[in-house]
Amino acid sequence: MNQWFNEELDEQYFDLGARVSIKIGETLFEGQSDFQKLQIVKTPNFGNMMILDGAVMLTEANEFAYHEMIAHIPLFAHPNPKRVLIIGGGDGGAAREVLRHACVEECVMVEIDGLVVEKSREFFPTIACELDNPRLTLLIEDGIKYIENAQNEFDVILIDSTDPAGPAEGLFTADFYKKVNNALKVDGLMAAQAESPYYFQKTQKELFGVLNGIFPYTTMYLSAIPFYPSGTWSFAFASKDYSEISHARVVDLEKMTPSLQYVNPALFRGCFALPNFIKKIIA
Amino acid sequence: MNQWFNEELDEQYFDLGARVSIKIGETLFEGQSDFQKLQIVKTPNFGNMMILDGAVMLTEANEFAYHEMIAHIPLFAHPNPKRVLIIGGGDGGAAREVLRHACVEECVMVEIDGLVVEKSREFFPTIACELDNPRLTLLIEDGIKYIENAQNEFDVILIDSTDPAGPAEGLFTADFYKKVNNALKVDGLMAAQAESPYYFQKTQKELFGVLNGIFPYTTMYLSAIPFYPSGTWSFAFASKDYSEISHARVVDLEKMTPSLQYVNPALFRGCFALPNFIKKIIA
Repeated sequence: MNQWFNEELDEQYFDLGARVSIKIGETLFEGQSDFQKLQIVKTPNFGNMMILDGAVMLTEANEFAYHEMIAHIPLFAHPNPKRVLIIGGGDGGAAREVLRHACVEECVMVEIDGLVVEKSREFFPTIACELDNPRLTLLIEDGIKYIENAQNEFDVILIDSTDPAGPAEGLFTADFYKKVNNALKVDGLMAAQAESPYYFQKTQKELFGVLNGIFPYTTMYLSAIPFYPSGTWSFAFASKDYSEISHARVVDLEKMTPSLQYVNPALFRGCFALPNFIKKIIA
Repeated sequence: MNQWFNEELDEQYFDLGARVSIKIGETLFEGQSDFQKLQIVKTPNFGNMMILDGAVMLTEANEFAYHEMIAHIPLFAHPNPKRVLIIGGGDGGAAREVLRHACVEECVMVEIDGLVVEKSREFFPTIACELDNPRLTLLIEDGIKYIENAQNEFDVILIDSTDPAGPAEGLFTADFYKKVNNALKVDGLMAAQAESPYYFQKTQKELFGVLNGIFPYTTMYLSAIPFYPSGTWSFAFASKDYSEISHARVVDLEKMTPSLQYVNPALFRGCFALPNFIKKIIA
C-alpha cells in the first residue's frame, strides 16, 4: 500500500509552515551512516527516491533538473574546463553530467559518506552510471579537508551538498569558500547548490555575503525542481575572471542540447534572469 | 492550534502522487457557491490563503508571482494596450496589476463566482484593492457567454482560471479559444494560466494543440509559484501578430520595475526560456 511521505525539514530546523509531500511505496533501504540517515523508497509515479535526514534528495523522474543545472551551467561558462572538482554529489548525478564534456580530462569527486555512493550504485543505476568512468577519481573523504591541500588546481568546482545543517554545515562558511578560491586556477569558477529563494533567504544572504567578499564576480541562477521546498532551487555562481556569458561555449552547448532534458542555449541565459525579490537577496 | 492542510487534488482528479502541504490556522470563511467550495484560512507564515474545491489558489505572501506574471508579460508585450479583458480572476489580483498600466483605458473583468469576489474584498484587501477603480468594469457572469458577444474589441485578454475540472472546464476548449480570437483586435494577444509542466503535460499538450491551430504565434512562459503543484507554473502566450519581444514596451517596464516584486526586463525575456522537456510539450 502507498502512503504519504512528508518531509521532516519543518520539524527539524524551523517552523517553515510548508512541506514536501509525496506518495511512497516499498522501502528499499534504510540505514544510518556515520553522517546521516539514508532512506531509499519506491514512489508510484516518480521512480526511486533518496531521502537524507528526512529531506528529499532526488527522485529518478526529476533529478535531471538538478544535475544538469549544477554541472552544465558552470562547465559551459568556462572556455576550457579540464580539471573539475565535485564536493559531495554522492549519488553520482553531477559526475555523470560533468563527464559528458569531452574536454574534461579529470573529474575529482570527494564525497564524505560512502554509504550514499554504495546505495546509489545499487538503487540508482541511471544516476551512478559514470562512477567507474576512468576520468573520474572518486574519494570517500571530507571535502573540507581535501580542499585544504588543493592549490590552483581546478578549472571548475561544484559544491553539491545537502542543506546547511548536518554534515554539510561547514560548506556554507567563509573559511570553506576561501579554500575553494585557493583551489581554483586563476581563471576558475564555481557553482554551489544554494537553497530555495522563497524559503531560505537568511541562508542565501549569508552565503552571498561570503561569496561577494571572496570572488570578483558572483551571481545566482535558478532551476525548477518539484520535490525541493517551494519547487524553485538556486545555485550560486562565483568566478575569478569570467562571467557566465563572457567565455561561454555556446556552440558546444548547442551540440549537447539534443541529449539533455533541461539545458539549452536560451535557458543557459534565461536561468540567470532573477525575479526582483531574489535580486535583493544576493545584492 | 496549527494543523496541516493537504491539497486534495490528488484524490479528486488523478493519482498524481505528490501534494501541496501547508500549515494552517484559523478558518476565516468556508462556504459553497453555485460553482465551487470556497475556503479562506490563516497560515502562520504566508498570510491568508484561498482554497477552491480543495486546491490552493493563492497566499498573500506569494500571490505576486502569479498576478504580476499573468498580467505584465502580455501587457508589456503589447505596444499600446487600451482595452483589456480578464476572464476569471475573482480575487482581483490580475486586475490590480493590469490597472498599473496607465495606457489601459478600460479593463473588463468577467468572474462567474460572485462569492469569490465578495470574500476577496473582505479577507484579501491588498489583492482586491483595485476592484472599485473607475477604469474597471466588473461583471459577475459566465465568461464563456460574455465572450460570444465580443468582436474585435480587446487588445489583450487574460484567462485567469482555475484548473480544467469544475467551473473552468470550458476554458480549455477549442470552441472557447476561437471566441477569444474573435474578441481580440487584429493585433491582439492573450495569456492564460496553463498548469504545471511537470505534472499536467496532457492538459498542456491539448491546450497548445488548440492554440497552435488558432493563433499565428504561440509560446509559453514560466513563473515560480511555491504553492502550486510542482512549484513551477506556466502561462500560454498566444498572439495574432506580435511576438513577446517584437513590440515589447521595455522602457515602460524599466520604469515600473522598482514597484514590482517579480517582473523586470531581463526576467521578461528569461521567462520564455524553456527547459527542453517543456519545449517538447508545446511544439
